[in-house]
Amino acid sequence: MDQLTMKKMAAEAALQYVKADSIVGVGSGSTVNCFIEALATIKDKIKGAVTASKASEKLLKEQGIEVFSTNDVSSLDIYVDGADEINPQKMMIKGGGAALTREKIVAALAKTFICIVDSSKQVDVLGSTFALPIEVIPMARSQVARKLVALGGSPEYREGVITDNGNVILDIYNFKIMNPVEMEKELNNIAGVVTNGIFALRGADIIIVGTPNGAKIIK
Amino acid sequence: MDQLTMKKMAAEAALQYVKADSIVGVGSGSTVNCFIEALATIKDKIKGAVTASKASEKLLKEQGIEVFSTNDVSSLDIYVDGADEINPQKMMIKGGGAALTREKIVAALAKTFICIVDSSKQVDVLGSTFALPIEVIPMARSQVARKLVALGGSPEYREGVITDNGNVILDIYNFKIMNPVEMEKELNNIAGVVTNGIFALRGADIIIVGTPNGAKIIK
Repeated sequence: MDQLTMKKMAAEAALQYVKADSIVGVGSGSTVNCFIEALATIKDKIKGAVTASKASEKLLKEQGIEVFSTNDVSSLDIYVDGADEINPQKMMIKGGGAALTREKIVAALAKTFICIVDSSKQVDVLGSTFALPIEVIPMARSQVARKLVALGGSPEYREGVITDNGNVILDIYNFKIMNPVEMEKELNNIAGVVTNGIFALRGADIIIVGTPNGAKIIK
Repeated sequence: MDQLTMKKMAAEAALQYVKADSIVGVGSGSTVNCFIEALATIKDKIKGAVTASKASEKLLKEQGIEVFSTNDVSSLDIYVDGADEINPQKMMIKGGGAALTREKIVAALAKTFICIVDSSKQVDVLGSTFALPIEVIPMARSQVARKLVALGGSPEYREGVITDNGNVILDIYNFKIMNPVEMEKELNNIAGVVTNGIFALRGADIIIVGTPNGAKIIK
């Protein structure tokens, strides 16, 4: 079974958590694109969505789903998003698509974070397969990179990428994260770091994994 | 003696720490404007400056002082900046001029942080007289404000202000900060917060206070 089919299975299984007349939190990325397509099939049953990226906003609007501002919503029942890696404690690395800051903001509004992934994203230790993205104020790029080296990582500047917030991305390679909560906090305290791609302080509540045997739900 | 005269005395006393042929870190605000004027009198002895705000950059250039990018400098001997409040442990509240993020970035490059203030800025407990500024991603404004209320503060949106990084400012009133290091970290972990105005993890090393009896140096 190909990866896209597994992503679609996970995305469609997430629909069961969408409440009638609610505003749905929607992340970004290729698995979320599948979820947006699935959501369009029940669009008359929901009020609309709040989303984490300009790309998702465009897709939602194309599907005729109303998009609300985060500042107009005091909380969301669910937030549905993918991940680049997820561990058994439901902590994640996110930010492959450079939308990590807005994803963290929308996730913080939600009562339940539903992470939809294909099985290739499951890891025991975060950082095993994927580089950790860090969103950085442009003028701090070099000095933040030096601090990341001091922490044991190999940061690389993501060429040509500017985030929706006007910042740059450093990807930290060779960076196994043994204590995600502590590392998320430590990175947040570096001057010039806007957000880091560790989602541990606020991890997922439910994982839906697309597998060759169907969607598997982990609570 | 008026406040401006005391600011000037502090600013001029800071010149003794400027090393020949060095690049000087320069903050922003009214006391720093006095320092830039003082620095101009020895501009042939220095290489130039790195600065924290577009306003200071403009002033430095008008004085004929070359301005370097933070990304071109691996460290600075000194960083000279003002503060809105400073306590006896040399921890500060900064951000009245909305340049807190860039100030924190340039301060992080410096070996020695020299804080120049008039005596009205000295407090025992941070938050006693001045509101604490928080730079926030615009889409997170409402939800961050709710979290600040939950922490016991009274946040107010600073109307009409956009930072040099394209973000907004929330000022927290009625917020006495008993443990600045812990509060700085806690605020950094709120999704949507770019920087908070507590400078405690990296406080000042030297305070120069302009007083009616002259400049007083506290090491």
